[in-house]
Amino acid sequence: MREIFDAELKHIGDGLVEMSRLVESAITRAGTALLDGEHQLAQDVIASDHEIDRLERELDERCVHVLAQQAPVATDLRVVITALRISSTLERMGDLARHVAEVARGRYPALAVPDGARETFVAINEAAGLVARRTSELLSTRDVALAAEIEAGDDVIDRLHQDTFAATLSPDWTGTAQETIDVTLLARYYERFGDHGVSVARRITYLVTGDFEAEIHAPADV
Amino acid sequence: MREIFDAELKHIGDGLVEMSRLVESAITRAGTALLDGEHQLAQDVIASDHEIDRLERELDERCVHVLAQQAPVATDLRVVITALRISSTLERMGDLARHVAEVARGRYPALAVPDGARETFVAINEAAGLVARRTSELLSTRDVALAAEIEAGDDVIDRLHQDTFAATLSPDWTGTAQETIDVTLLARYYERFGDHGVSVARRITYLVTGDFEAEIHAPADV
Repeated sequence: MREIFDAELKHIGDGLVEMSRLVESAITRAGTALLDGEHQLAQDVIASDHEIDRLERELDERCVHVLAQQAPVATDLRVVITALRISSTLERMGDLARHVAEVARGRYPALAVPDGARETFVAINEAAGLVARRTSELLSTRDVALAAEIEAGDDVIDRLHQDTFAATLSPDWTGTAQETIDVTLLARYYERFGDHGVSVARRITYLVTGDFEAEIHAPADV
Repeated sequence: MREIFDAELKHIGDGLVEMSRLVESAITRAGTALLDGEHQLAQDVIASDHEIDRLERELDERCVHVLAQQAPVATDLRVVITALRISSTLERMGDLARHVAEVARGRYPALAVPDGARETFVAINEAAGLVARRTSELLSTRDVALAAEIEAGDDVIDRLHQDTFAATLSPDWTGTAQETIDVTLLARYYERFGDHGVSVARRITYLVTGDFEAEIHAPADV
């Protein structure tokens, strides 16, 4: 039974890594579509989100199957429950990447981000890409030192999110109402993306360190 | 064992109803704080969110305990997994009510919503209150006819969300950049709140009708 369970867990872990790699690709491409006004790329990100959704469903079914067949208890049970939560968080990160791509597509052939906010979004997209990349690495290596890098990346996103408010509220802001709206929502999507990355990082850290009491308290809304 | 399991399930169901009632109270009070500029009320909503968070943790622990002690399979297992998902969604609805209250508090003694958007937010808050109330009723009665009312309430919110874009993009809009940002984010919070209500409604419907295949596919991002 133990070998089957361990094989199932490995399978579930591989599924999470696969989801995370797709999220990483989605946010990176969404950022390029946004900043360079690439319509086809935006389209591709939007179309590929269903693949992340499909993986989530597959992974959830696998988790439910393991719970039913193996009836794990204690730590093993919490590992499976945590996997369910992480897959739901990764799915949501995929949605947020899709939302960024949708804004890019909606403004095409114009750029959604005006010149005055471009640098901020170049940086915020870079930080989001880092969060996603480190999340994939953390999921595949279980090296909890990566969690600190994810938290640091999220801090950068939070600061840049604040910068977008400062920019749109500045007397120098010459953006249209549409640009103010787009910048506000885009920054919010990235900010949530970072929060979710931190949520995954904390859950994995709890899995590795075994501090499951804390895991239960891991906020999705950090 | 069966009686213990049924008693545990009832306990979990009661916990979900309690969470939902708190969410209902939070969104209603947050709307009043927002529209009438009531600082103390905003403060109260923000302070009381931790109670929803505490209930979520308690409920999750109870679900994990039931899984460990009872090792449910088939439908029973899916009921517990669905309860875990609903508690996480209700917790998020509580966060969104808190975000509305935070905007109200941040602008005090001014009103965050300018006159030109007031009517829309009166209506959107009413629709969100309806979604929350029907969600509590659905959780306590399992009367799936209520799910249609929740979907209809969410449709109203989505339409009003679109109205806020039309308003802020209209040449008649005289709001400041701060007001444009606030209206954009507030409408987004309400829109997500409605989506989450629909997600709960669908999950409960699947529980009652037994269509668990569909449940797994219930989108959080409807």
